[in-house]
Amino acid sequence: MDLTIPTGLKGRDFITTQEWSLEELESLFHLAERLKRARAAGEPTPLLAAKTLYMIFFDASTRTRNSFETGMTQLGGHGIYLSPDRMQISHGENARDTANVLSRYGDGIAIRQCTYGEGNAYLREVAEHSEIPVLSMQCDVYHPCQILADYMTIRERFGDTRGLKLGVAWTSAPNYVRPLSVPQSLILMMPRFGLDVTLAYPPEFRLMPQIEEQAKANADAAGSRFEITHCFEDAFEDADVVIPKSWGPLVHTQDVQEGIGLIDRYPKWRCDAERMALGKDHLIYMHPLPADRGREVTDEVIDGPRSVVYDEAENRLHVQKALMALVM
Amino acid sequence: MDLTIPTGLKGRDFITTQEWSLEELESLFHLAERLKRARAAGEPTPLLAAKTLYMIFFDASTRTRNSFETGMTQLGGHGIYLSPDRMQISHGENARDTANVLSRYGDGIAIRQCTYGEGNAYLREVAEHSEIPVLSMQCDVYHPCQILADYMTIRERFGDTRGLKLGVAWTSAPNYVRPLSVPQSLILMMPRFGLDVTLAYPPEFRLMPQIEEQAKANADAAGSRFEITHCFEDAFEDADVVIPKSWGPLVHTQDVQEGIGLIDRYPKWRCDAERMALGKDHLIYMHPLPADRGREVTDEVIDGPRSVVYDEAENRLHVQKALMALVM
Amino acid sequence: MDLTIPTGLKGRDFITTQEWSLEELESLFHLAERLKRARAAGEPTPLLAAKTLYMIFFDASTRTRNSFETGMTQLGGHGIYLSPDRMQISHGENARDTANVLSRYGDGIAIRQCTYGEGNAYLREVAEHSEIPVLSMQCDVYHPCQILADYMTIRERFGDTRGLKLGVAWTSAPNYVRPLSVPQSLILMMPRFGLDVTLAYPPEFRLMPQIEEQAKANADAAGSRFEITHCFEDAFEDADVVIPKSWGPLVHTQDVQEGIGLIDRYPKWRCDAERMALGKDHLIYMHPLPADRGREVTDEVIDGPRSVVYDEAENRLHVQKALMALVM
Repeated sequence: MDLTIPTGLKGRDFITTQEWSLEELESLFHLAERLKRARAAGEPTPLLAAKTLYMIFFDASTRTRNSFETGMTQLGGHGIYLSPDRMQISHGENARDTANVLSRYGDGIAIRQCTYGEGNAYLREVAEHSEIPVLSMQCDVYHPCQILADYMTIRERFGDTRGLKLGVAWTSAPNYVRPLSVPQSLILMMPRFGLDVTLAYPPEFRLMPQIEEQAKANADAAGSRFEITHCFEDAFEDADVVIPKSWGPLVHTQDVQEGIGLIDRYPKWRCDAERMALGKDHLIYMHPLPADRGREVTDEVIDGPRSVVYDEAENRLHVQKALMALVM
Repeated sequence: MDLTIPTGLKGRDFITTQEWSLEELESLFHLAERLKRARAAGEPTPLLAAKTLYMIFFDASTRTRNSFETGMTQLGGHGIYLSPDRMQISHGENARDTANVLSRYGDGIAIRQCTYGEGNAYLREVAEHSEIPVLSMQCDVYHPCQILADYMTIRERFGDTRGLKLGVAWTSAPNYVRPLSVPQSLILMMPRFGLDVTLAYPPEFRLMPQIEEQAKANADAAGSRFEITHCFEDAFEDADVVIPKSWGPLVHTQDVQEGIGLIDRYPKWRCDAERMALGKDHLIYMHPLPADRGREVTDEVIDGPRSVVYDEAENRLHVQKALMALVM
Repeated sequence: MDLTIPTGLKGRDFITTQEWSLEELESLFHLAERLKRARAAGEPTPLLAAKTLYMIFFDASTRTRNSFETGMTQLGGHGIYLSPDRMQISHGENARDTANVLSRYGDGIAIRQCTYGEGNAYLREVAEHSEIPVLSMQCDVYHPCQILADYMTIRERFGDTRGLKLGVAWTSAPNYVRPLSVPQSLILMMPRFGLDVTLAYPPEFRLMPQIEEQAKANADAAGSRFEITHCFEDAFEDADVVIPKSWGPLVHTQDVQEGIGLIDRYPKWRCDAERMALGKDHLIYMHPLPADRGREVTDEVIDGPRSVVYDEAENRLHVQKALMALVM
């Protein structure tokens, strides 16, 4: 298999898809498809032999860590799992020192830092001082790798994505306040690839204003549609793809107790067979996992034939391998 | 060295030796011996190049983690150490999602979960949903890799194992209640290879009834003997091999304080030179480590010439490499 | 590039530079330079293919872990990060068992144990029982890898190091009591390479008497100078290199509160531009990081043109790779 890597992206950061052109994103998807086929065929892909990716996790993770670390192994390199409580970040080391030192040792820095109002700023500060690429594994604003996997999954199902309707719907999931990064990254990138996006949430759950505005601008530029509604069913109506997913009312309030109270106010925002029936016959259900079964979605839907959640999770591996091979 | 791998075992789970035929276990030991010789000769053995094993530890470990992870490196792949408190298992992710997602990324799932009444059930649930092999690193019922290493060690010493007497004896070790998995796996497998097993414990420390029954059935089928006694010395009398090891009175009571009280009732159940003198001249002492020195065994015995505990620990590496190379 | 490895050092422990001859240290620096050039040229250096280094951390670390683990990857092997709370060391496993078992699995044991009065003793005990080399990643007495990196950095700057003046100065850094290992290793090794060392500290912050005496003996044998002063500025006066760094008054008191109180008594022991002006025009500032910015050193100095802290941090990678390739 031809695994030639275009060189133009070497050294580039990946913090949001917004900073990558459509052509650059297309070259990533093209490589991801070839890497997926190479893996299925058992062909070795040592594109990053003996290279090291530092993976700094301020927040717990299963899919993200395992897909990045496994990806590095499959590319011939190694991912180092770092959590700040075991690093000297907990002794007050600043982002500048972390960035400079890791730049001297290895080949890439991946970070997950989802604290509202802090995560993206930390990634940007590390990137400013780093000589090696900085990759987002999710921050408070963006989760670009998840959305790459989502788009790859949609394209595998439908081929041409232009004119497909994607519903992005808030769901009610108790106990903790989830970041805004998944819906925000979805509404930013999907319209650029021609999907018509309907975003549904209760009034208190709006996304960051500048992100919603950028999503509208992206849709206008691409000739696709981006709409916001406060009716859950609107996201399903005649849709090709739905991604129902909980997030916190963080733009409205950052008080955790008040946030959980607001989430509990909308128990009917749950994806079930009845809502799925509103979409097209070929409607597929997606979720980045872990889903709160019973609250965000019924078992019937997530374990049913329209669910592609495991394909979606798998594609994390392939898009991230492509990303790392391109920039590292 | 010929490191051709028989293909018939690819994809098989390894949760208990009971589910593997003698011929299958023999092919594993044969490969383990060749891998041991290859390592001694400094020959590379890249049988699992670029493959990933997920190692999920619900309980702490030294030998198990290091032997599996080092084994993966020596086979050309990588082991990822995962502990549930850092995974989203702690956010309520179920076994089904864990199994399905890891199946899409890597090549094997190894699990250590020793909680009484839960461990084996968790392994079985992951195995049910996993498309890649599930390997036990110890559960509440079985510790099959330890017993593979024990058998390899015995065969290295004695050659033909038929007719050897193995004493498996409970010992008193304070402070915490150890799982039943080591003695249970010993009595299940050793009689199948022709060893006559004497199992000695105080009345409150019986093993799970169905395991003791299966051990008896295995001995009957193989023409070997399996006996249970409540006298510590019976395990040593005329023995070729003794494995004195503490476990908890879990079948009798799952109350931890009551369990520790029962353990403290039998301080004389300790392996010492006097007991070792009851066995044959060539009697060897084994223990899976860590041993509670002074309580389970005297320093004189565990550090003496009859102790093969480090050979036994080393063989963990070789049998596990063979296992992984066969199934992954 | 010629990466032939001299075989005479295979199997050697590295706990203090004092136990290595100048010729042995020179062969290490020679290999470190070649490995640095190979990395810059993108040449593969699989000198430790499929080998495993165990890295046991009793204390947190960024540079040390990442430089060792990345180094092993670049040499074709793998470093396993171990912390005692997740090993059975926390179940009472002794150094003898740890050493013996790891010797059977892998190829080297690196340890960081900085507890005053315990760390070095633990390393020595593991080394006594280990059949594979034991490498210090810092103990309570020595930090030899840091000093190798420091010397490599100085030689890169100045070429011939004979007759250079090195100032090692205590600085005030609050909140916690740092080990003596960095200044102690500096005063032991630097005079052997011909540097004249001035060590400055407030009276309560003396180093271990036997180390100060050995440093003097080393200087006498090499024809260089070693002086102790209680005046901060003496370390800077006419110096070529300064390494201002905090440590605890551990020889004086091991009471933490009293120690922190003593540290707070000397707030003026801080490296700033005024002090830097006392040295030669080409004076360079070094620090092993993480530095307490504002207390140990002003931002102006550590981020200024005379600071070589990131070169120094980078050289950790190269000297450690050379060390591992020589002994493992």
